[in-house]
Amino acid sequence: MFQSFESHASPSQGPTRLAALRAQLAMVGLDGFLVPRADVHQGEYVAARDERLQWLTGFTGSAGLCIVLPGVAGVFIDGRYRTQVKVQVDLGAFTPVPWPEVKPGEWVRDHLAAGKVGFDSWLHTSEEVERIENSLEDSGVILCSKSINPIDEIWPDQPDAPSGKVFVHPDALAGETAADKRARLAKDLRSAGQNAAVLTLPDSICWLLNIRGADVPKNPVVQGFAILHDDGQVDLFVAAAKLDDTVRAHLGPEVVLRAPEDFPAALAALAGPVRVDKSSAPLAVSTILRDAGVKVVWGDDPCKLPKARKNAAEIAATREAHLRDGAAMAEFLCWLDDRTPKGGLTEIAVVQALEGFRRATNALHDISFDTICGAGPNGAIIHYRVTEGTDRLIRQGELLLVDSGGQYPDGTTDITRTIAVGDPGDEARECYTRVLQGMIAISRARFPKGVSGRDIDALARYPLWLAGQDYDHGTGHGVGAFLSVHEGPQRISRLSEVPLEPGMILSNEPGYYREGAFGIRLENLIVVKEAPAMGDDRHHLAFETLTWAPFDRRLVLPDRLARGERNWLNAYHTATLEKLGSRVSPATFEWLSRATAPI
Amino acid sequence: MFQSFESHASPSQGPTRLAALRAQLAMVGLDGFLVPRADVHQGEYVAARDERLQWLTGFTGSAGLCIVLPGVAGVFIDGRYRTQVKVQVDLGAFTPVPWPEVKPGEWVRDHLAAGKVGFDSWLHTSEEVERIENSLEDSGVILCSKSINPIDEIWPDQPDAPSGKVFVHPDALAGETAADKRARLAKDLRSAGQNAAVLTLPDSICWLLNIRGADVPKNPVVQGFAILHDDGQVDLFVAAAKLDDTVRAHLGPEVVLRAPEDFPAALAALAGPVRVDKSSAPLAVSTILRDAGVKVVWGDDPCKLPKARKNAAEIAATREAHLRDGAAMAEFLCWLDDRTPKGGLTEIAVVQALEGFRRATNALHDISFDTICGAGPNGAIIHYRVTEGTDRLIRQGELLLVDSGGQYPDGTTDITRTIAVGDPGDEARECYTRVLQGMIAISRARFPKGVSGRDIDALARYPLWLAGQDYDHGTGHGVGAFLSVHEGPQRISRLSEVPLEPGMILSNEPGYYREGAFGIRLENLIVVKEAPAMGDDRHHLAFETLTWAPFDRRLVLPDRLARGERNWLNAYHTATLEKLGSRVSPATFEWLSRATAPI
Repeated sequence: MFQSFESHASPSQGPTRLAALRAQLAMVGLDGFLVPRADVHQGEYVAARDERLQWLTGFTGSAGLCIVLPGVAGVFIDGRYRTQVKVQVDLGAFTPVPWPEVKPGEWVRDHLAAGKVGFDSWLHTSEEVERIENSLEDSGVILCSKSINPIDEIWPDQPDAPSGKVFVHPDALAGETAADKRARLAKDLRSAGQNAAVLTLPDSICWLLNIRGADVPKNPVVQGFAILHDDGQVDLFVAAAKLDDTVRAHLGPEVVLRAPEDFPAALAALAGPVRVDKSSAPLAVSTILRDAGVKVVWGDDPCKLPKARKNAAEIAATREAHLRDGAAMAEFLCWLDDRTPKGGLTEIAVVQALEGFRRATNALHDISFDTICGAGPNGAIIHYRVTEGTDRLIRQGELLLVDSGGQYPDGTTDITRTIAVGDPGDEARECYTRVLQGMIAISRARFPKGVSGRDIDALARYPLWLAGQDYDHGTGHGVGAFLSVHEGPQRISRLSEVPLEPGMILSNEPGYYREGAFGIRLENLIVVKEAPAMGDDRHHLAFETLTWAPFDRRLVLPDRLARGERNWLNAYHTATLEKLGSRVSPATFEWLSRATAPI
Repeated sequence: MFQSFESHASPSQGPTRLAALRAQLAMVGLDGFLVPRADVHQGEYVAARDERLQWLTGFTGSAGLCIVLPGVAGVFIDGRYRTQVKVQVDLGAFTPVPWPEVKPGEWVRDHLAAGKVGFDSWLHTSEEVERIENSLEDSGVILCSKSINPIDEIWPDQPDAPSGKVFVHPDALAGETAADKRARLAKDLRSAGQNAAVLTLPDSICWLLNIRGADVPKNPVVQGFAILHDDGQVDLFVAAAKLDDTVRAHLGPEVVLRAPEDFPAALAALAGPVRVDKSSAPLAVSTILRDAGVKVVWGDDPCKLPKARKNAAEIAATREAHLRDGAAMAEFLCWLDDRTPKGGLTEIAVVQALEGFRRATNALHDISFDTICGAGPNGAIIHYRVTEGTDRLIRQGELLLVDSGGQYPDGTTDITRTIAVGDPGDEARECYTRVLQGMIAISRARFPKGVSGRDIDALARYPLWLAGQDYDHGTGHGVGAFLSVHEGPQRISRLSEVPLEPGMILSNEPGYYREGAFGIRLENLIVVKEAPAMGDDRHHLAFETLTWAPFDRRLVLPDRLARGERNWLNAYHTATLEKLGSRVSPATFEWLSRATAPI
């Protein structure tokens, strides 16, 4: 099993650890400290040794920040984790703070009249520090940059840094050789008059060099740093033990392998101007450069957009991964329909079965994230991860929300279906149908060039808004090609002003959550493409759907759908049967035929 | 008649005037000059003496910019005017440039290797100049600020400045006394630590002081400047002859009347910090302040948001204005249906008839803009203004687009209906129905606090997008309360990130235009309000519709509408009959009963 069901932390350890941290801070002359979920690479998955937020507070979410002050410790969590945080942290010691509604800097001002608040300059981006510093301007609070993290001083059994093996991502799947990518990006640097760019994001480095790794769970990335020079040469800062001869040969002589400890000195030795991404590089990077007199130019990580715009080979490979994954999903959904009437099924058993169907493809590299499988009220915990402690018997009349995905060598999948167990009633059907309408609205959309995720986010929410409902998360995130399942910069969200461009893969996942009752989420992956010519032949973009698996027809109220919505659903189901039919078992084929019948 | 049908300019005069301008520029040592449509107050309507762009080029649109360079003169026009500009300017002398796709600064770079380009520092905002300067950085072109406009030097019969009489806007309609407004805004200045704010927008000054004027057509504003001090006193720079004793008594001793010529000296005599709106104040204002050593703080015009958030009295008054205007519209539409089968009707006759119905209310102060009345292909010219030269016989089988509004002492209206003359065919009905669906989507919307016009603009376009269609203008603009029919900062547009707030009045006017064939636009005014509690009782906002007049049922394809859309349309029509029934003639009542029957 890739997924484990242990609970890595419990609220009970929080108060003691918090007291130890406060004692440690007193020793180094600080009144407070920022403890982010982020590691130096700002990734969603962090190595065990970087789980400082979880170790301190018990909170296991994928984003968050604890601000420890003398009298209060705020745990900043976004809409996805409002319910979860309440059961994971000791509410006597920690105070959940809604984020981004409350700004960290302003919260500090409100809770500390004067004093010194420290932060680890390797764990925060320049942008983040600047934002907090701005809001502390004219206050009595001073933000102090530190290079030693006090958590590391008091965490007795902190694990070692990861040492996963690096492997080659074949050119046939990547669609462009690493040498071509380096040359292309180096040319951009030269035309921008920059001598080098610093890369601190593992997925950027993996994309650029056509390599993958095993340093963190779920994301096949290599933790390390790189410097791309304007001649296309790359300095790669990764522990030598992670690379075998095959990988070294693949990298070639233009990629110089160097020890991670040498990264700061190598930065200091650069000739400027050097491009640094303000929104993703640790503050430490620009500090080192500036202290050494190297001119820093803020600019996007040069891999960000090229990586986001998947080429034809990446899209073709991803399509194949989705067909394979869809067939596994169909086997799973058929099994579930057969199994649930018998009773006695728990969330963990469902997760195990689903992973089994994916493993049976013989192509599963990893799951793309811990499967979210929430029955009844657990479905309303947006990023619920079932543990032995929370596991729940699935009962008749409940909705079961299953959000899962696979990492295959040819692509990354992410799919959510919500399934009726018995008859969940018409109120649940009303809500399900609204969520489905929102998902269909995005799926069918055509739009002019220049439109960003922000501009279309409301299309997915509109059916819910009309009923006085909504969901507290974005509509969609970017997805990588056998890389991070959450990839920037594209998103479908009111926070995203990045124009959607052909080749960008996104999730499309509206939802509806009723705390204490049920959760609904429906998710397909989609890829931006040129729209087929029609109408006035404006230059429109559109989405191609990548994910194929039936939606639960028992939860759809057909008379609520407009004609175009119903046509879309029926066409999607017809295509699902056509595409998956030859890939599933005879029993599943029969089930799939029924599950994809027109409504 | 408020509307005239003369053509104020023709393409033929452009080349001579352009040559004269170039000669004048050579005399003062300039290679080029910026000639904007804007006047010193950045308003949409400018006094006759400020129609410099029209005088030079022939282009009569409400927004634009001519950049005169030695070899080329670019006329920058937005999507609304792409068709119109081609017939209004001499294309041998002037080159239309799509705006904002092409940036003025970049265009100058592309067309002039080196030289001096002048601009009138009273006609451009600081923001605008900064933007152009930034894109000219490192080029050989220098932007030169001038306080004498070369057009004024070569325009022999340039009209005088306007001298319209100022009148009082009653407290009962304004809902807040001018003294209370001054005190409220002064308090904001004090808490921001600012000694004064400079007001250069006529509608801000009129709103603040509860006065109206007659300096420009259509907008009942007073042209002038004001300085709001942090004690609530105001210096008002308006020609004394415009104010009678009643107005002077209304203004009271805390408003000090001063001559417009004194404005620069008064600025220079201020003690800082002084708030200046970078996006609306002329560059000259901040230049004068800085040259005098006064600290300038950039900040919004302090009237902008308070003016946009209409209070209960303003909304109630506006509702009444719309009922009056709706009854006039119903009389007009009834007349039109009766008249068109007889043939021989022209666009001008329609405009005259409509203005007649509005005048018959005995409450019409002015029309809110020149009625756009376009039959057949003229309907596709988005901001078409009919003249004797373009007037067109309305033929059977055509669509007639009529966009009009009234300025009443209690409110400003703006309504567009598109009417079938005979049978325009199913293709026109398909397009009409899509536009209607977009208008209904906005009308019905509920949305969370914080949502801006940008976030909902796509709702109005979506039905068109699905058919490969779109429209090249925003979905809605802000509207004043017996003030400008185009009022900021709220808009429904991908360009507007201003959160929608209760009390903001907006137009909701999607359209569809097929060049050379027909145009469709459907427009109601709406006001943002707290949404009635429903669903999860999230804090949602919604729109209340202010405009009441039937949509042409003969152009609606009922089977294209989703249930909610059809319900909205039928409910709107039922309410229209209820609200207007008692206000119209018996013949119109009968017509209205048929026109508002359910579909």
